Amino acid sequence: MKRLIVIGGVAAGPKVASKAKRCDPDLEVVIYQEEGEVSYSGCGLPYYIGGVIPERKKLLIRTAEQFGLDGIQVLKRHRVENIDLQKRQVSGVKLDNGQTFGDTFDRLVLATGSEVIRPKIPGMDLGQVFFLHSIFDADVILPQVQSAAVKSVVVVGGGYIGLEMAEALSQLGKKVTIVELAPQIATLFDEDMAAVLRQYLEKKGLVILTSEGLRGLTGQNGKVTRVQTQKRELPADVVILSLGIRPRVELARKAGLKIGETGAIWVNERMETSAEGVYAAGDCAETTHRVTGKRVWIPLGSTANKQGRVAGINVCGGHETFPGVLGTGIFKAFDFHVAKTGLNMREAKMEGLEPIQAIVRGYGRAHVLPGGKESVLKVIASRKTGRILGAQAVGEGPSDKFIDTVAMALQAKMTCSQLAEADLAYSPPFSPVLSPVIVAACVLMNKIEGTLGWLSAAELKEKRAASGDHFVVLDVREEKEVKEKRIPRSQWIPLDELEKRLGELDKNKEIAVHCHSGLRSYKASLKLKHHGFTKVENVDGGLLCWSYDLEGEKAQD
Amino acid sequence: MKRLIVIGGVAAGPKVASKAKRCDPDLEVVIYQEEGEVSYSGCGLPYYIGGVIPERKKLLIRTAEQFGLDGIQVLKRHRVENIDLQKRQVSGVKLDNGQTFGDTFDRLVLATGSEVIRPKIPGMDLGQVFFLHSIFDADVILPQVQSAAVKSVVVVGGGYIGLEMAEALSQLGKKVTIVELAPQIATLFDEDMAAVLRQYLEKKGLVILTSEGLRGLTGQNGKVTRVQTQKRELPADVVILSLGIRPRVELARKAGLKIGETGAIWVNERMETSAEGVYAAGDCAETTHRVTGKRVWIPLGSTANKQGRVAGINVCGGHETFPGVLGTGIFKAFDFHVAKTGLNMREAKMEGLEPIQAIVRGYGRAHVLPGGKESVLKVIASRKTGRILGAQAVGEGPSDKFIDTVAMALQAKMTCSQLAEADLAYSPPFSPVLSPVIVAACVLMNKIEGTLGWLSAAELKEKRAASGDHFVVLDVREEKEVKEKRIPRSQWIPLDELEKRLGELDKNKEIAVHCHSGLRSYKASLKLKHHGFTKVENVDGGLLCWSYDLEGEKAQD
Repeated sequence: MKRLIVIGGVAAGPKVASKAKRCDPDLEVVIYQEEGEVSYSGCGLPYYIGGVIPERKKLLIRTAEQFGLDGIQVLKRHRVENIDLQKRQVSGVKLDNGQTFGDTFDRLVLATGSEVIRPKIPGMDLGQVFFLHSIFDADVILPQVQSAAVKSVVVVGGGYIGLEMAEALSQLGKKVTIVELAPQIATLFDEDMAAVLRQYLEKKGLVILTSEGLRGLTGQNGKVTRVQTQKRELPADVVILSLGIRPRVELARKAGLKIGETGAIWVNERMETSAEGVYAAGDCAETTHRVTGKRVWIPLGSTANKQGRVAGINVCGGHETFPGVLGTGIFKAFDFHVAKTGLNMREAKMEGLEPIQAIVRGYGRAHVLPGGKESVLKVIASRKTGRILGAQAVGEGPSDKFIDTVAMALQAKMTCSQLAEADLAYSPPFSPVLSPVIVAACVLMNKIEGTLGWLSAAELKEKRAASGDHFVVLDVREEKEVKEKRIPRSQWIPLDELEKRLGELDKNKEIAVHCHSGLRSYKASLKLKHHGFTKVENVDGGLLCWSYDLEGEKAQD
Repeated sequence: MKRLIVIGGVAAGPKVASKAKRCDPDLEVVIYQEEGEVSYSGCGLPYYIGGVIPERKKLLIRTAEQFGLDGIQVLKRHRVENIDLQKRQVSGVKLDNGQTFGDTFDRLVLATGSEVIRPKIPGMDLGQVFFLHSIFDADVILPQVQSAAVKSVVVVGGGYIGLEMAEALSQLGKKVTIVELAPQIATLFDEDMAAVLRQYLEKKGLVILTSEGLRGLTGQNGKVTRVQTQKRELPADVVILSLGIRPRVELARKAGLKIGETGAIWVNERMETSAEGVYAAGDCAETTHRVTGKRVWIPLGSTANKQGRVAGINVCGGHETFPGVLGTGIFKAFDFHVAKTGLNMREAKMEGLEPIQAIVRGYGRAHVLPGGKESVLKVIASRKTGRILGAQAVGEGPSDKFIDTVAMALQAKMTCSQLAEADLAYSPPFSPVLSPVIVAACVLMNKIEGTLGWLSAAELKEKRAASGDHFVVLDVREEKEVKEKRIPRSQWIPLDELEKRLGELDKNKEIAVHCHSGLRSYKASLKLKHHGFTKVENVDGGLLCWSYDLEGEKAQD
């Protein structure tokens, strides 16, 4: 009879235990869990605070009693403090009474998770200053934000948990301000896609301050009242700090296990650490990025679950592997679905992959059917090899479907020409006749094979500022669209009139052509090329990704 | 200056013309279109009839005038009747005045589409008997079905167009009866999945008659009033015949072009026919199935569009290829999303691929969030190689997303173990922590590696009928579920009590274990195996796919 000890009981730990027990019913399995709850949905916490999940017990996936019925012992409020790899022993303290305990193992799995990063600023000890990491954090936050006395909330950090919390609090009627040190929110996304999201969130009433670091918190009677940033002071009845997390590895480090270059526990493909028979899974472990081949730490509930399965099989003598992640992720912000997979443009450039991007309208059904929703979809490929490198989707459309499709293409190391051959489910209620993913793949092929130049919205903005009179922005949309909003000082010739009105354009100038999404401007650019214009550039994604100055009736939309 | 003639103007034809003109602006491009409309959404017709698409003009994607602005000439109501491959000439008749016309080409593309199969039965000439194939069919049907005098409609044919029409007519308040010759509706799907759909449609008020051939139509005053089947006579104010379509190839055949084994025009990967410089695309052309490698004819709007792009590039001297299809398809039936890709179990067996299946609950969000929708998801793999062969999804959940994901895995020739490693977008509003696609892949791996036996619902039904007392159906669900509905004469022991109550089971008997979806019964089967029961079989998909006799409070649900 062998004994498996699992340290950590939220996500990866319970999965390891259950899988191992199913693989080998004779195995003794014990989970040591520091908190007073086991097996709960950490990802569900913002929805619990926002009231979407009405009862705390809905967050609890399985109780200690239920594990008991499967022959798995769960010891809650037991903190493991030492691992002796030689003697195959662990020891620790029972948090309820301070007594120590010891145990021995044949196999050990660390599933110690992650911990929040606490900024070293004045005022951190004030009341009404919260982190959201554990279900017990939610227990403390919930009554506070449900109080009508709490009117203004400052969320520090514009990552996905910060944004989920901002939505939840906004739905509860709070005035929410997001403070982010970086120049953009959602820093895993490219600037243009993050700008699409930001415009939407501002319309939803959030105040978003970027490039603005947190300096300190001040308060009265022990409670926070103001947040100091580098630029201003903000009133706050509650502050949510969401500055990121890091792997929880002190126990592993103390035991002498190898810590990887990412700061998380090093494991091989079998989820085994540097010590034989000792495994790690979930947020405490590092893994491999399947696009770059490099070691990464990308903590996610879904990854924890898959790694738990692999570790659970292997502790029973199996030979399962976890080959790594693609960096796929998604979050909801009001009705926007914000998803990504693979590398963004910045990451791909840093890897020397010479990325190019296609930005298209990601409509969720055929245009003949009314009522469809749209996301902006970006797909990235390598100009050298044509290989797909990543994708991002932002909007009310089926971002999740687009990103899952591209994630599969990434896993299979497809090129854009292979992605263009995808056979995806089409009928009018579900997709345009060509999936936006396929359209994006075709745009990438055109870019690689074609002779046209391209500009991103940010590049257009910079070039226009720098080039003065030698640079023309040509808008080829219809009159109605142009009246609503247009880039100031752009020249306007609708696509259908372009052939007749070529004389209005100067062949010696550089011409950046744009429309709403990039399709008509692509056709216009081809026409200009055909008529001897040589300095023609199509603007990626057109106005979809233009988050800079606009004029017209709906310029503020 | 070269001249391209495109014959056919609905889907593939316009795409060929537009792509070719963009690739080579000097090319002369002419579309000959027999009908009086060009470039419209054939797939949108059922939604136009059902009132979801409110205006006819919404179906029209581009007009002849719009093509004209791009330099593409569209000649409507021109029927091409002859092609002279030697002289590179076509000739035909103008349908408006009966005059003949002739033209010459350098490149020719056939996009002649498909035509409906007309049954040879009495009464076909009666009024109120319709096919739905062209926009002009819809023009005739629409005022009829909008009339309150039309109360009963019989739809002959339970394929996806028949089912889409049945929904549309039901939404208009008609009493709809579907008559299908095959033993099931939706014959592209396996029997169990089609049964899930059928139960749903019957709850929605449709009358569905299967294994029932059409014998004839009778009427009064020249209008249909009754439909005779092999088993009964049905009253009908309108009859919609939806018995399938076939490729429209007379013109190609007469010209001497090779017709493939499927009855459609033979083309190579470049969409070129047996004659140099002559291409075919869309519903008239055959293609290759990328799972079997065999020639197939699977007409679809999305395929037509992709083939049109490839042909359009190649007529300009390009070297694009279309490698084939996976048999991906989807349709909506009320709120059910019914999708498939690859091979079904029958097809995979016929190919000698030794298929196994996993049937799982395809929930659209994490279970912690309320309000999610569910599809039944089946994924099929080869027992020999582990390679994914196909998938089907039926229900209100995100069937389209599941099927697109598996379609990508099929294209990449992934095994179930590779599919289990997919990195798909997870957060509670979008997916369970493990996507149902990944869960299904894991079930397939368990099946391949494990020692458990498995039964499909149909096999369970047959075995139970044949084996009598030596065969036990063991239900391991909770009391509440069992009270609602259960398989008659099944033995009931909840999973949590199984360990204690093993004595109630006979080790000499064959035991088929089931639950709601197959997960608890899998755990129970493992327990039984562990305790020395040898003849244990888990039931695929549990009650999800059990469409046979039930008893209990909600047995009719």
